[in-house]
Amino acid sequence: MISEPTLLLDEEICKENIYRMASKAKEHNLVFKPHMKTHQSRHIGAWLKDAGAEAITVSSIKMARYFANAGWKNITIAFPVNINRVKTLDELASETELTLLVNNSRAVQALEYSLDNSVKAYIEIDTGSNRTGLDSTPTDDIEALIKEMKGTNRIEWCGFYSHPGHSYDARSPSEIRHIHNSVIEQFQKLRDALAGTYGEFEICIGDTPCCSAGDNFDGIDAISPGNFVFYDLMQERIGSCEISDIAVALACPVVDKYPSRNQLVIHGGAVHFSKEKIESEEQSFFGKAVEHDGTQWNRINPELYLTALSQEHGTVTAETGTIEAYEIGDILTFIPVHSCLTANLIRRYTLTSGRTVEQMPLSYS
Amino acid sequence: MISEPTLLLDEEICKENIYRMASKAKEHNLVFKPHMKTHQSRHIGAWLKDAGAEAITVSSIKMARYFANAGWKNITIAFPVNINRVKTLDELASETELTLLVNNSRAVQALEYSLDNSVKAYIEIDTGSNRTGLDSTPTDDIEALIKEMKGTNRIEWCGFYSHPGHSYDARSPSEIRHIHNSVIEQFQKLRDALAGTYGEFEICIGDTPCCSAGDNFDGIDAISPGNFVFYDLMQERIGSCEISDIAVALACPVVDKYPSRNQLVIHGGAVHFSKEKIESEEQSFFGKAVEHDGTQWNRINPELYLTALSQEHGTVTAETGTIEAYEIGDILTFIPVHSCLTANLIRRYTLTSGRTVEQMPLSYS
Repeated sequence: MISEPTLLLDEEICKENIYRMASKAKEHNLVFKPHMKTHQSRHIGAWLKDAGAEAITVSSIKMARYFANAGWKNITIAFPVNINRVKTLDELASETELTLLVNNSRAVQALEYSLDNSVKAYIEIDTGSNRTGLDSTPTDDIEALIKEMKGTNRIEWCGFYSHPGHSYDARSPSEIRHIHNSVIEQFQKLRDALAGTYGEFEICIGDTPCCSAGDNFDGIDAISPGNFVFYDLMQERIGSCEISDIAVALACPVVDKYPSRNQLVIHGGAVHFSKEKIESEEQSFFGKAVEHDGTQWNRINPELYLTALSQEHGTVTAETGTIEAYEIGDILTFIPVHSCLTANLIRRYTLTSGRTVEQMPLSYS
Repeated sequence: MISEPTLLLDEEICKENIYRMASKAKEHNLVFKPHMKTHQSRHIGAWLKDAGAEAITVSSIKMARYFANAGWKNITIAFPVNINRVKTLDELASETELTLLVNNSRAVQALEYSLDNSVKAYIEIDTGSNRTGLDSTPTDDIEALIKEMKGTNRIEWCGFYSHPGHSYDARSPSEIRHIHNSVIEQFQKLRDALAGTYGEFEICIGDTPCCSAGDNFDGIDAISPGNFVFYDLMQERIGSCEISDIAVALACPVVDKYPSRNQLVIHGGAVHFSKEKIESEEQSFFGKAVEHDGTQWNRINPELYLTALSQEHGTVTAETGTIEAYEIGDILTFIPVHSCLTANLIRRYTLTSGRTVEQMPLSYS
């Protein structure tokens, strides 16, 4: 019986999302290295293992520690090396096959100076998101970094990684594919430029839109999408998924009702949903209500918009004339704008069976 | 030695903020019922007790449970009653003097039907924020609710509560006072309208801007501000505080550097800062860098803007020509836009002494 904000996870939808992505990886001969940052849970990690994943990707050192403790032996930390934590990386490297993103000479020096164990290293390529990584052309900086790593005892350069985050600007599968194909093309040129001198190397890309909607993976060796296990309203808007693919929803009790302004107030605020918002000219929102039969949700309830959030309060605006269908004490269910941030706040999942599944404890370090 | 995103708490600034607000309450003959939602920590609760607080305010039932376990005996839950959790409220009412916000007949019925212990009840007044609460005029709905509560055995109506959240639209102390004075006026009229029939009752208001900048508390009996213990950039923008009053800052390591676009990348993202943003025509930002001497921060570093966040990454844009002063591995310190949400994400504080202070565990229910 739900009585407070509760993050529901539809195991069936989640496992279908996992199976679909694992199958796609297999079909395209790609190593499947799913990113764990969205779910942060060893239980969901086990579902990924069941689908064939042998290697994983994480976004922080503490997440690497947590999943290493859960038995994973091949871990990529898809975040630039934090040179203040090389000792912890060394411990991880003693237990696992650890791959890091090494984007600069400082990181090479810090690792080589302090590691007792060997690590593998991707150079991150900025394929257009302008967040992190080196430009793919000209190759001078890349080649200097490869050469520097080749001169070390502890760092084995193994290829390139990219998170094409600019795919989040897409608004349809064909727009995603346009971006995806430019990423493929950049890597093909990079391979052509370097293969003669440096031999074989791996290329791994890791965003959910491109991995979901892309159909050409020529020259790519591995994929590391994360959000696809749950998807969310942002991914639906981008064109990565359908509403029916979204595997998480937040159930919230109605605590107050204001018919004169067609509004309900729920217990469900910024500490549950996060402040991630989809802004549009018609209606900006922090989540969309779904019809929920007690075990499953099926379709969007077009009458309700989650229009405002404060710390614990959510304001739900109803279409004129529909407010009388809702009562104080009702449980309303919303799919989130950004499932990674919602899951990170709630830190546990309630399955359709009622079983609760925990995330990595916050105290991990 | 800081090596990963760390929420620093300057105990001295925090205690000054507490002392200033407690003194102001005393000076105006107000009961000081500080809101615990910002810090969520029994340790900081103890500092409030040292400053004379005997009663507290919280925003959720689990927070009430946590602070009751920490020894607080007078607790107001400043959130509309969740009628699905009346049994838990009953347990709390058996241990503490519990005050609830009762805004509707459904809540009255649910409480009266299920409670074995008595509770006090405020009716919440919507003084202009349009979130929760009844309008102060006409008084028909308010009087109907008072009468209904007077007919119960378990609910003792004790007065009115308001969180004038529209004070967040202010941009100067005088704009805050303008809003504050309209709140005072609404309550004076309400008291005039009801005192003859219903006798004495309490009025409690609870927003940090009005409690910080207001100077007229005529007719108000109690205040319950929360954010003032830490303040933040949003409060500074509203006019509630100065930058030097902000007691928390997030220290983050630099992990990458892009001189060609004047950008640094830090480990410090949406899961640390939250996505709360201050938008302005000049420069939108998620936090402001401060100069930090290792133990204290003093003033804003005007060279650095925290311009973008993803889950773990923060992008810091530097003024042209200043990037060379920063290096990979440096620790940069930022004061947050919204300290409540940042504290809620990190869930622990590192004091200037190096001691760590924990928040309420997330598993509380």
